[in-house]
Amino acid sequence: MRQADKQTLQRILDENRKYTAMGKVADYIPELRRANPAALGLTVAAKDTGIASVGDCDTTFTLQSISKVISLLVALLDHGPEKVFAKVGMEPSGDPFNSIIKLETMNHHKPLNPMINAGAIAVASMISGRNVEERFQRVCGLIRMMTGNNGISLSEQTYQSEKATGDRNRALAYFMKSTGIIESDVEEALDLYFRLCSIEVRCSDLAKIGLYLANWGRMEGSDSLQIDPCLVQILLTIMVTSGMYNASGEFAIHVGIPAKSGVSGGIMAVVPNRMGIGVIGPAIDDKGNSVAGIRVLEDLSKTFGLHLFSEREERRIIP
Amino acid sequence: MRQADKQTLQRILDENRKYTAMGKVADYIPELRRANPAALGLTVAAKDTGIASVGDCDTTFTLQSISKVISLLVALLDHGPEKVFAKVGMEPSGDPFNSIIKLETMNHHKPLNPMINAGAIAVASMISGRNVEERFQRVCGLIRMMTGNNGISLSEQTYQSEKATGDRNRALAYFMKSTGIIESDVEEALDLYFRLCSIEVRCSDLAKIGLYLANWGRMEGSDSLQIDPCLVQILLTIMVTSGMYNASGEFAIHVGIPAKSGVSGGIMAVVPNRMGIGVIGPAIDDKGNSVAGIRVLEDLSKTFGLHLFSEREERRIIP
Amino acid sequence: MRQADKQTLQRILDENRKYTAMGKVADYIPELRRANPAALGLTVAAKDTGIASVGDCDTTFTLQSISKVISLLVALLDHGPEKVFAKVGMEPSGDPFNSIIKLETMNHHKPLNPMINAGAIAVASMISGRNVEERFQRVCGLIRMMTGNNGISLSEQTYQSEKATGDRNRALAYFMKSTGIIESDVEEALDLYFRLCSIEVRCSDLAKIGLYLANWGRMEGSDSLQIDPCLVQILLTIMVTSGMYNASGEFAIHVGIPAKSGVSGGIMAVVPNRMGIGVIGPAIDDKGNSVAGIRVLEDLSKTFGLHLFSEREERRIIP
Amino acid sequence: MRQADKQTLQRILDENRKYTAMGKVADYIPELRRANPAALGLTVAAKDTGIASVGDCDTTFTLQSISKVISLLVALLDHGPEKVFAKVGMEPSGDPFNSIIKLETMNHHKPLNPMINAGAIAVASMISGRNVEERFQRVCGLIRMMTGNNGISLSEQTYQSEKATGDRNRALAYFMKSTGIIESDVEEALDLYFRLCSIEVRCSDLAKIGLYLANWGRMEGSDSLQIDPCLVQILLTIMVTSGMYNASGEFAIHVGIPAKSGVSGGIMAVVPNRMGIGVIGPAIDDKGNSVAGIRVLEDLSKTFGLHLFSEREERRIIP
Repeated sequence: MRQADKQTLQRILDENRKYTAMGKVADYIPELRRANPAALGLTVAAKDTGIASVGDCDTTFTLQSISKVISLLVALLDHGPEKVFAKVGMEPSGDPFNSIIKLETMNHHKPLNPMINAGAIAVASMISGRNVEERFQRVCGLIRMMTGNNGISLSEQTYQSEKATGDRNRALAYFMKSTGIIESDVEEALDLYFRLCSIEVRCSDLAKIGLYLANWGRMEGSDSLQIDPCLVQILLTIMVTSGMYNASGEFAIHVGIPAKSGVSGGIMAVVPNRMGIGVIGPAIDDKGNSVAGIRVLEDLSKTFGLHLFSEREERRIIP
Repeated sequence: MRQADKQTLQRILDENRKYTAMGKVADYIPELRRANPAALGLTVAAKDTGIASVGDCDTTFTLQSISKVISLLVALLDHGPEKVFAKVGMEPSGDPFNSIIKLETMNHHKPLNPMINAGAIAVASMISGRNVEERFQRVCGLIRMMTGNNGISLSEQTYQSEKATGDRNRALAYFMKSTGIIESDVEEALDLYFRLCSIEVRCSDLAKIGLYLANWGRMEGSDSLQIDPCLVQILLTIMVTSGMYNASGEFAIHVGIPAKSGVSGGIMAVVPNRMGIGVIGPAIDDKGNSVAGIRVLEDLSKTFGLHLFSEREERRIIP
Repeated sequence: MRQADKQTLQRILDENRKYTAMGKVADYIPELRRANPAALGLTVAAKDTGIASVGDCDTTFTLQSISKVISLLVALLDHGPEKVFAKVGMEPSGDPFNSIIKLETMNHHKPLNPMINAGAIAVASMISGRNVEERFQRVCGLIRMMTGNNGISLSEQTYQSEKATGDRNRALAYFMKSTGIIESDVEEALDLYFRLCSIEVRCSDLAKIGLYLANWGRMEGSDSLQIDPCLVQILLTIMVTSGMYNASGEFAIHVGIPAKSGVSGGIMAVVPNRMGIGVIGPAIDDKGNSVAGIRVLEDLSKTFGLHLFSEREERRIIP
Repeated sequence: MRQADKQTLQRILDENRKYTAMGKVADYIPELRRANPAALGLTVAAKDTGIASVGDCDTTFTLQSISKVISLLVALLDHGPEKVFAKVGMEPSGDPFNSIIKLETMNHHKPLNPMINAGAIAVASMISGRNVEERFQRVCGLIRMMTGNNGISLSEQTYQSEKATGDRNRALAYFMKSTGIIESDVEEALDLYFRLCSIEVRCSDLAKIGLYLANWGRMEGSDSLQIDPCLVQILLTIMVTSGMYNASGEFAIHVGIPAKSGVSGGIMAVVPNRMGIGVIGPAIDDKGNSVAGIRVLEDLSKTFGLHLFSEREERRIIP
């Protein structure tokens, strides 16, 4: 990457670090509570021109809801869109990520989309494998492949904490079992869901996942697609409408980049055909999104012209 | 436009006409009930290469919810995004267009977005003007300018019917008055809203409105912007997340074109930097969208590569 | 009434006056805001043995929701239970009195019961009369008859304020118009509703209304029924399950006397075959009930054995 | 009991048997599905004058929701009203018995009352005992004492079926665990709840439980109270406002007897100081109440003047 672009990234990081003070780290489990609220890191993995990291990119954090994108991809690979979307909707929701109301009031009891907890648990229940361990390894293996990082695995402590405190998710899952949305074993679906939320990554891993999707499922340096680009199109679109919890609409307007956030403060973003982006900023707002992370992405979008709708057809890109 | 492209449009129209049988015309007022359920028309207004219409493009119909895009634009021009979005949200909603639940259960009682009825009535209450007539003429004047069609006006009969049967909208409006979202006269806001819904257009008018937005507020043949392109960016993004009622998410995945539908069966769609599209197909589904109209747009999107996320950077376009 | 009983009433009033400090006067209109939060008055009108008042019984206040009992009676007299309960339910609600959610989510869109605002407005829409004034006079005339107080009329100022600030009730009414629950003119139904809420009374009037119901529609000193006692049975039962807003269940357990409260701080209570009770205490809780008024009634119930379920078959009564 | 009264009971049963055709047996588990929809039985256990049964009183059925009254009594005996009602409300609900919405939308996440599933599961979680078996034996033992029937125990098959299909109840329970309403082990609370629902009884057992409550906790023929009558007062009042699911208000108006129904078609009713009543009629309506059972109780109430509010102070009673 050009030196000038790296300097711009550093400027963006520096100018938005102040927003870390406006959020709070998630506190429902000790592992998240221990995160440094002042941390902020950014990695950009651009097509052809390489990768650059600025800020606090060395610390590890758990995927949390970012894993919902990957598990949806695996379910789509296993069963195809028709079967998956028979059990989970495609519609954005105005409700908080862990809301149960719509499950009761909607006609078909389908969770509105795969990016809210209910939808992601339903998706986890569809992933193929002889047992939870095998299913987990299938999803984790895909992440290792995307990132080229074979060291990726789950944080045992986070997993145990998620499992111990996951009663709201258990409520969602048993409700869906009672309505037939979940057909397989509920506790296994939850176990897989908690494991996937607990996968540990760094900023650069998120950026590489993003780049893989920006390349429509092509590994950097290769010409061959590894997955049907239609599935990537689905992922990107759902990230636009539903990726940032019930702030997705505002994020789409202000930033305009397909993205998925997690309560650990991570955000994985994709500029199709151009780059993948990873951000970490553990101080989150009341909707679950990294406060400074959103500001960094907004600045990045405006600086480099990355909004999905831009006046100039030729968007300026990191070369 | 090239002859080959026109033929393709005709093929798309012919192949999707069968879907008109799967919907029903809106029946809450006589004017909508009288529409021909078998009708289907398509106009494409492409940048530089001109306009083409196929099918039943001669009949007039009322804008209905499509007017929500234009009234939002006028409110944004009058007050700027900050003030407008202090009263109405940016978030897509999983609820039907006329739902009142969220107004009661959301913390700030803001309607979720300007594309649902509650949000559009709130927007109407913010449009400047000494009286309802003046406010109406400001919005209608903008539509005349965009379309170059000075004959555009409201259907008096539809307006009277909307007004006479608009009790659900009245309920939404008085609720918002009680929570302070609407600060001006409720009946005037409703009167304006009903008038805007009753503006009569043809397919070609919708296509030209779409082209105006595709050109970021430039009139075809001109180089100068007439409005801030940031406002167009807001409109396009909201159309993606919320333009097709509570089927917006599905439409974004399958079609991937910013669009706004109305219960008259019209759809106005925008391919930024490329074209505006107008569709009419009065037979609508239970969410309020033209059944065949959606199929036409999906076919158009796949045939010409118009999805907002496409693998090939160079999308094929109508030349 | 025996001197000993009067002294007991005075003792009850004195001991519970401290609870007036735990509530606040309703503040949505100036007329209610002006009430003295420290006021507390109690009138008991016992069968055969006469009437006794203690505390601040001289001030006037408006009926507010207490009028819902009388307007229900008039609607029942006009149309009979079957027709009335085709439009409004008999079920207690766990929601606040002005909630609109259930109107949207219930299958038949019927307001749950006649004691919540939506139900009472629906009831008002059914009262017979050539115009609002005549309908008002019919209800007001019944109250004059019950109380023997021909001076009873509405507070013009309260009425005007209610009308000017009644947008939430307007929302409820227009919603019911849109679903067919209200068949007559919405604004007339609301006008009547606001007038009935604004009828001015004293504690003794409430006690006499209560005594009239305790006597099953017999005027004190008379042997002849003026209304079908079945209608009184309906009123008393609905007062038990739904008379104290969404604190009705708690009140039924702790006090066990059919009662109806208003946000002015008044409570009208009935001990069937024994007495009517009027209480005024303008400091209300967050559910809309007089804080000290509830305590006075609880003390009264325990002291005189008035709970609807009592171990001893022969309840002690004011002789 | 007098021969004339027995004949009246027989007449009531015969005349209302036709209503069995208007309901359907519960079908979510095989054990309920096997019940005879045409069955109808009635037992009246009157104070002093003895017990009489007419119709199909020999068949056994499971308590289902009727057990909620007894488990509430045990929790009240264990902890007192204050502690119990800190975790579960006293308010009737307009929602179906298994609804989860209010748990999410109410401020304190308390289930509205102990007669809906969520409330009864919360109550079960409070019952003292070293393990589920001991807790079950404490509740079951109380029922054996009330009925004098030491053979009462659970139907193992029903219990296993309830447990296997109880995912909706599991969702309610885990939701309450996540909000702190349930503090003990969720699966144990559910296990106890399913066991209590599966206790097998006959009509005469229900009538005797009712008589025990009608006697304020005195065994027939004894003068000494075994429990605080205040607890019985609480039970009776809650049965009035919430005992018949979301048809409680209508039942209170038309019948006016404290009662609790179960989806097995049983109803246990109490006329304080007078009698206990047991009814079985497995054909239930869409709210979960025995269709013919309600008609029998309405007829009984009107024939013998049992409504809680009656014009004549001296109600006619079975002598």
